[in-house]
Amino acid sequence: MEEMHQVVVIGGGFGGLNTVRALKQAPVSITWLDQRNFHLFQPLLYQVATGGLSPGNIASPLRNIVKSQRNTRVLLAKVTDIVAPNRQVVLDEGGKIDYDTLVIATGAHHHYFGNEHWAEVAPGLKTIEDAIEIRRRVLFAFEAAEMETDPREIRAWLTFVIIGGGPTGIELAGSLGEIANDTLEGDFRSINTHDARILLIEGMDRILGTFPPELSSSAVKALSRLGVTARTGCMVTDIQPDSVTIKCGDRTERIETHTVLWGAGVQASPLGRRLAESSGARLDSAGRVIVEPDLTVEGHPEIFVIGDLAHFGHQTGKPLPGTASVAVQQGQYAARLIRERLRGRALPPFHFVDRGTMATVGRAAAVADLPGIRLTGYLGWLVWLFVHLINLVEFEDRLLVLIQWAWNYFTRNRGARLITGEAPAKKSEKIPVGVR
Amino acid sequence: MEEMHQVVVIGGGFGGLNTVRALKQAPVSITWLDQRNFHLFQPLLYQVATGGLSPGNIASPLRNIVKSQRNTRVLLAKVTDIVAPNRQVVLDEGGKIDYDTLVIATGAHHHYFGNEHWAEVAPGLKTIEDAIEIRRRVLFAFEAAEMETDPREIRAWLTFVIIGGGPTGIELAGSLGEIANDTLEGDFRSINTHDARILLIEGMDRILGTFPPELSSSAVKALSRLGVTARTGCMVTDIQPDSVTIKCGDRTERIETHTVLWGAGVQASPLGRRLAESSGARLDSAGRVIVEPDLTVEGHPEIFVIGDLAHFGHQTGKPLPGTASVAVQQGQYAARLIRERLRGRALPPFHFVDRGTMATVGRAAAVADLPGIRLTGYLGWLVWLFVHLINLVEFEDRLLVLIQWAWNYFTRNRGARLITGEAPAKKSEKIPVGVR
Repeated sequence: MEEMHQVVVIGGGFGGLNTVRALKQAPVSITWLDQRNFHLFQPLLYQVATGGLSPGNIASPLRNIVKSQRNTRVLLAKVTDIVAPNRQVVLDEGGKIDYDTLVIATGAHHHYFGNEHWAEVAPGLKTIEDAIEIRRRVLFAFEAAEMETDPREIRAWLTFVIIGGGPTGIELAGSLGEIANDTLEGDFRSINTHDARILLIEGMDRILGTFPPELSSSAVKALSRLGVTARTGCMVTDIQPDSVTIKCGDRTERIETHTVLWGAGVQASPLGRRLAESSGARLDSAGRVIVEPDLTVEGHPEIFVIGDLAHFGHQTGKPLPGTASVAVQQGQYAARLIRERLRGRALPPFHFVDRGTMATVGRAAAVADLPGIRLTGYLGWLVWLFVHLINLVEFEDRLLVLIQWAWNYFTRNRGARLITGEAPAKKSEKIPVGVR
Repeated sequence: MEEMHQVVVIGGGFGGLNTVRALKQAPVSITWLDQRNFHLFQPLLYQVATGGLSPGNIASPLRNIVKSQRNTRVLLAKVTDIVAPNRQVVLDEGGKIDYDTLVIATGAHHHYFGNEHWAEVAPGLKTIEDAIEIRRRVLFAFEAAEMETDPREIRAWLTFVIIGGGPTGIELAGSLGEIANDTLEGDFRSINTHDARILLIEGMDRILGTFPPELSSSAVKALSRLGVTARTGCMVTDIQPDSVTIKCGDRTERIETHTVLWGAGVQASPLGRRLAESSGARLDSAGRVIVEPDLTVEGHPEIFVIGDLAHFGHQTGKPLPGTASVAVQQGQYAARLIRERLRGRALPPFHFVDRGTMATVGRAAAVADLPGIRLTGYLGWLVWLFVHLINLVEFEDRLLVLIQWAWNYFTRNRGARLITGEAPAKKSEKIPVGVR
């Protein structure tokens, strides 16, 4: 009797999830590996960071997703290496797993362009823990301002700097504007939350650089209504616990702040480098694996690399963007090709179908760049809402998120604004007390 | 012009919350202090620990609770000392706040009876962080068992020991039974979750010692249906990362396990001792402040101590139990007495009206000891559900919790079973990998 074809899928994000699901009916045995026990719906992570949703709302346990998919086993493990010649992956405690086909979808993480020490002062937003840490810092800044008596320090606590004018930066800035202007209104007795300054720093000449220019300017208008100032053409040159220094053209400016959020750069997962060493795969400057037209590694048709970790340049000459929809379609393609190969057939090269991009700008406004139509404002937001809701993996999550949103929308409240983690309220961060 | 009467309330639990709310119409100026920015509905904390609810569902930001109560300001601060002769509280960064009346409601925390090093191995359940840590350990134990090949180690990972047979221990044990027998059923490929052993260790001769004996035996039966074994008359003599040692009569037994949860002892907040040093208040052996019939400290009618921190022995000779309902009623009494005093009037001594106690035992069963009636099983559970829902502070929470429960009940699913925190999946804890 022939042994079942062994597929190993690394990563529980959009790429891995869609590979595994699309192999449900295939005559293969799948091992799905991830360090975390859940799939995270990252497009809504900023809502956790700003207290609109709870972590549980946007995360689904991997085991639950494939509960009825009997050809799949889930293992909670970190992959430390790939031995391409032996067709094996190595786990962190030394275990090894054999594969006939390997799908690597381990994504990307923050990148501080050589200033990795900024990570401590300016957290990015990739994981549930990141989101909870950002939530803690933002809410704590208002608390610290309420306790403070020195006007200059109050201003520093009420200044929020977001670095990076892409969708994540926009969404964080918009939510912060909403928090300061609506949610927390009336919560404090000494400070006025409307005094909060929210600065969005972007190196290019406009925010949302991957969107059409008119959507960028529409976003700038919507943001300014929420008290967010976009500073374009400005590079960050230094970040300290009490300030950010930016350079706009020739002018250098020091902004006093205690809350800096990072939405600027990502770098591919380190597993790309391990793969390159073992298989001879080529990497681009961001550490992404340069893949063939069928998403496999040159010389290794049994190894697929998909999602944010892949550099796919065969369609437009430029790599495809690191978005959920690219990862979803690549996961589905990889699964289809695996199935076809088992029948001795091939597939035409991968082709990404762009169904548009979107970003929200605070409460009830969004920009959407869809094929044939560009939407802004309330209509853009309704489309955004619809698309994100139907894409949440679990029905329960959809229902709870819908109710939570409806509640937040009508009451302007955010129920999940808890300061948790670390030492209770981590006072080490210099919170001066000048009460009465 | 006379200055407003200054009330300082320390603690955002049931006692503090009810004092503050009941003073809404009073001609006083209130400062409400807590280290955390939210009120936690502790009776449902075990649901977070077992993945049934998200932290946001059972926590309400303090600022939101008193948003429209203009006589109250909230400060996020830790109180380190009380200077009773000066009528001042001292905050951790050196700030001081004056009071005319002080209400101390800082509760209790775990107590390991001189074995404080057990805290690391056997976490208790008092805070959101505790609940998330317990959730992480429980879910991770099943993951580790799935990876393991040594039958003895598999058995150790699938053995859960809960120390303490009071309501918290019962509720944790029941939820664990539910997780092993329903929720995770079919999630794993190597292990059978029904093999999980859940042991509930109680030093007395029966569990739920504060309930009538027939409810204890009803709970034992309900628990055993969920695979929980109650071991009564057993004292814990040692806890190690891989075992618990118990002594039942003359017999000593070593149980191999990696997951131990602590529900046995609490000790009053350390602020009680500071108060005693400053005011001459007397403490009992658990560190609680022995209060007068009107809940004030002897010789200091301006200082109230309420809730778990108070030892009120004037009603039955024994101190009142450390339950939410005692704290609620004491908070309301303190507020009423403050209002009456401002009018130059007094009140009769505090009298606790016992409206009954309840504990759930897994899915759809509970024991309830109510005045005039004792309920068990499904009916007990419906009453438990109703009472807990109407007592959640915020309407939004009530709605979301109801939907989440309905979902969990009908699908036997638990959406919030995320392993988060610390290093992803904290592999340092010896997880052996023996895959294929």
